[in-house]
Amino acid sequence: MQPTKAYAALDSKSPLVPFQFDRRDLRPDDVQIEILYCGVCHSDLHQARNEWGGSRYPMVPGHEIVGKVTRVGANVKNFNVGNLAGVGVMVDSCRTCKNCQADLEQYCEQGMTGTYNAIERDGKTAAQGGYSSQIVTDQKYVLHISEKLDLKAVAPLLCAGITTYSPLRYAKVGKGTKVGIIGLGGLGHMGLKFAHSFGAEVTLISSSASKEADAKRLGASKFLLSTDKAQMKKYYGYFNVLLNTISANHDYNAYLNLLGLNGNMLVVGIPAEAPTVQPFNLLSNRRSITGSSIGGIKETQEMLDYCAEKNIVSDVELIPIQEINNAYERMVKNDVRYRFVIDLKTLY
Amino acid sequence: MQPTKAYAALDSKSPLVPFQFDRRDLRPDDVQIEILYCGVCHSDLHQARNEWGGSRYPMVPGHEIVGKVTRVGANVKNFNVGNLAGVGVMVDSCRTCKNCQADLEQYCEQGMTGTYNAIERDGKTAAQGGYSSQIVTDQKYVLHISEKLDLKAVAPLLCAGITTYSPLRYAKVGKGTKVGIIGLGGLGHMGLKFAHSFGAEVTLISSSASKEADAKRLGASKFLLSTDKAQMKKYYGYFNVLLNTISANHDYNAYLNLLGLNGNMLVVGIPAEAPTVQPFNLLSNRRSITGSSIGGIKETQEMLDYCAEKNIVSDVELIPIQEINNAYERMVKNDVRYRFVIDLKTLY
Repeated sequence: MQPTKAYAALDSKSPLVPFQFDRRDLRPDDVQIEILYCGVCHSDLHQARNEWGGSRYPMVPGHEIVGKVTRVGANVKNFNVGNLAGVGVMVDSCRTCKNCQADLEQYCEQGMTGTYNAIERDGKTAAQGGYSSQIVTDQKYVLHISEKLDLKAVAPLLCAGITTYSPLRYAKVGKGTKVGIIGLGGLGHMGLKFAHSFGAEVTLISSSASKEADAKRLGASKFLLSTDKAQMKKYYGYFNVLLNTISANHDYNAYLNLLGLNGNMLVVGIPAEAPTVQPFNLLSNRRSITGSSIGGIKETQEMLDYCAEKNIVSDVELIPIQEINNAYERMVKNDVRYRFVIDLKTLY
Repeated sequence: MQPTKAYAALDSKSPLVPFQFDRRDLRPDDVQIEILYCGVCHSDLHQARNEWGGSRYPMVPGHEIVGKVTRVGANVKNFNVGNLAGVGVMVDSCRTCKNCQADLEQYCEQGMTGTYNAIERDGKTAAQGGYSSQIVTDQKYVLHISEKLDLKAVAPLLCAGITTYSPLRYAKVGKGTKVGIIGLGGLGHMGLKFAHSFGAEVTLISSSASKEADAKRLGASKFLLSTDKAQMKKYYGYFNVLLNTISANHDYNAYLNLLGLNGNMLVVGIPAEAPTVQPFNLLSNRRSITGSSIGGIKETQEMLDYCAEKNIVSDVELIPIQEINNAYERMVKNDVRYRFVIDLKTLY
């Protein structure tokens, strides 16, 4: 067993506290990674506080993990000790259903195994995440990380990156596509960078006028203030694709009207209250809404390689692990540009 | 001016009554049609009763029109006196926007001109529909009708037919596609016939067990009772495509869960209350919802030609025009299998 230092939520009400536990012993297909950085995702906070229900405690959050390989099992051929490696939102899946076979493990018919707040497929081991000193993961769910990029800024690619990359690829966003990114947070800022790098014309749509300068710095050619009815009217039917990254409760209909013929609103946020959809707004211009959940392992690797080639990383604020509870408070107030990343050296 | 006999709604409260008005004089591009049959669409009732708001009176409803050409203007080359001809849901559009240029006049950026309850593009003439002895329509919006089919059963193809044909084609339904048709009414029975004829495996999904026998007679290989939770669970993730024809208020979420990977629910009904959509149900299996509104003129002709080739028509109940108010009452009670069609000879 591998003694592991971590920060964990012990219940839904209290702050996260220092915590020790044993990682599973190395199996023949396992890679052991010393965690260097872990991004802080909104879903960490939701799950630590049991805001989606069904949380398991003690819970070590974190699924935007990068670090260095420290040991490999006997069957592991593609990772060597000393390599950089990453772990994202899932650490296993059934591997046999048609979705797993099609490299879409995130849609595994048996349900993928989450990196934390989950039970591993042995039916008993609690899966624990990246706010910790190390992780032991089957090689099939471990990603290769380039040496070329700023490692701390790579961590958020494992969730915020793939969550926005995958739907934009699925919607065939490229040169000539008019894309609107709704919301400029952890997801939105990555969506903006990707859509821009794919050659699309990108508009950032936000309810805060203060985001305009940053949006343009990150690659947006236009900025649309969603609270300004005249501007929203001007953009009626303008976009081919919208990427809706908002997790707060909101109305889909105002955004749907921005879509032109065959336009599609890609949805990656999960507001607590289910939005209403006025069917007339779908019938007009033959509009669609499509949901998307992270990406498969193959596509996640493709995204990481693409980022290395194009020099794309997340905009991050590095924090010591001791600051995690304060970081959660600041995330609730939307006070982060655009992702907190934990420096795991501070665990020691 | 062409004196025209009709039945009209004079206000939102009263029954339809006999009515006379003058159709516009024949213009060089016009086709004048003696109306033989006109289907009765749910939207006729909604608009006659001003249930969607903005109704114009007097209103002659009817946009599932078939008849015989009686006169043609000087520029008309494709229709001759004596030909069968049809008019559907629209009689004009701007003709110049990119959607009109792409044969998608139903999504005209200036708004298409409806066959009734609309003002023609001269800005003053009230467009009046098919519960009447004749219609005068620009040749571009007139359809050719085959002599091979039962003419009265062809009429509903002009709205119920194209409204279901177009989205099924857009979703590339064919051999190997598992399609669920939600609701067995005027739209649903046509959707079922088309999906079956395209080679798909078709399941009829209905809240009334009494529809099963008819569904199977019309081409469904399976029947799913939507009120039976165990059956609904069994079909979790089963379908590639759902065609949702329900116009009554209902919950999208129970149906979304029936979709497998990349599944799409095509929406053609407009319930009065906007349905809610649980984003989690979209993120799972990367599901979509897509709206669709009738079809363009080119695709409507393609559909009519396809029906002639495959011998597809609507199941209809022929009524004299004097029965129209009673037919409306029966439609509200869902007491029609599956479309009323008015025999316009009874006007005289």
